[in-house]
Amino acid sequence: MPETRVIVNLSNRHIHVSKEDLAALFGPGHKLTRTKDLMQPGQYACEEVVTVRGPKGSLDNIRILGPERKETQCEILASDVFKLGVSGCPTRESGQLDGSFPFEIIGPAGTLKKTRGLIIAKRHVHFDPESAQRFGVADKELVSLRVGEERAAVFENVVCRVSESYALECHLDFDEGNAVGIGSGSHGTVIKK
Amino acid sequence: MPETRVIVNLSNRHIHVSKEDLAALFGPGHKLTRTKDLMQPGQYACEEVVTVRGPKGSLDNIRILGPERKETQCEILASDVFKLGVSGCPTRESGQLDGSFPFEIIGPAGTLKKTRGLIIAKRHVHFDPESAQRFGVADKELVSLRVGEERAAVFENVVCRVSESYALECHLDFDEGNAVGIGSGSHGTVIKK
Repeated sequence: MPETRVIVNLSNRHIHVSKEDLAALFGPGHKLTRTKDLMQPGQYACEEVVTVRGPKGSLDNIRILGPERKETQCEILASDVFKLGVSGCPTRESGQLDGSFPFEIIGPAGTLKKTRGLIIAKRHVHFDPESAQRFGVADKELVSLRVGEERAAVFENVVCRVSESYALECHLDFDEGNAVGIGSGSHGTVIKK
Repeated sequence: MPETRVIVNLSNRHIHVSKEDLAALFGPGHKLTRTKDLMQPGQYACEEVVTVRGPKGSLDNIRILGPERKETQCEILASDVFKLGVSGCPTRESGQLDGSFPFEIIGPAGTLKKTRGLIIAKRHVHFDPESAQRFGVADKELVSLRVGEERAAVFENVVCRVSESYALECHLDFDEGNAVGIGSGSHGTVIKK
């Protein structure tokens, strides 16, 4: 029998920034200040926060997750779409920014107009290759995930992402967690199609 | 084959008030001002809003839904629990207030301390008796409901409520709608156990 039980952690809205954009937002030579390691190896929450602005409104205190990435990307919640005025903002895997929305970022040292990079994060499970083998899943495979108790649900179209640099962990966002009444550190069951 | 397709409308946080509490909040003899009829016969949204306060914070502009009810009841979202400081606030069917949480209500003419009535609404489907027969469900029966497309999910423990006074309609809340990327007026599929 393949393994099915996976830890589920909830992501809040957050942003990843490129080196160039970090310098533009916080000043040349600024280094990110790590405050908390995340479960994925090498990933961490930072002290630095920015404001993200859309056509209709803005969100303050959007936390930067480090380290810097090749391209700046902001992952919002579906419940933020109305406030920002970005109806139609697509649900995308991290790093897949074709068709993502433009947005503005306001930092203490400057403001940036990005032509793309705003997405709603697609729910996903990170697997190291050994875990993927135990679960019987392949990179990019779509599975379902059952979570919750009294307010349980089966989320469909959960993408499996397999890499040597990952640790076994499912990421849902705050909207999804609230809908099923769970917090970070819950467990879910992977259901193959 | 039983019928399975049902319209889904999303509920935001809201409050139902008793006649006595309406008078205490808005002044003696105050009548609710209807602004929009809801799909359930005789139910309507009102112009009147109140502030709801918990131990840690408050929510402004909580809309009253009319008509007046026997007992005052405020239905919040799971995503409001942190702001109000009401961790452990139970998920309940409307009207089932045993074990519900205390809260305060602030209106233009007065403030009320309620010893109970604060709940997270349990997702449910309203059926008139004829629709219930076509769907093959009974009052209080728990079913599942599949909703959404790209972000589809199957919500479990959806309670069927059958009454002559109801119209066929499923109520999810904003957290649930955001988690699956749907708005009001979507359709879902009822799945019997």
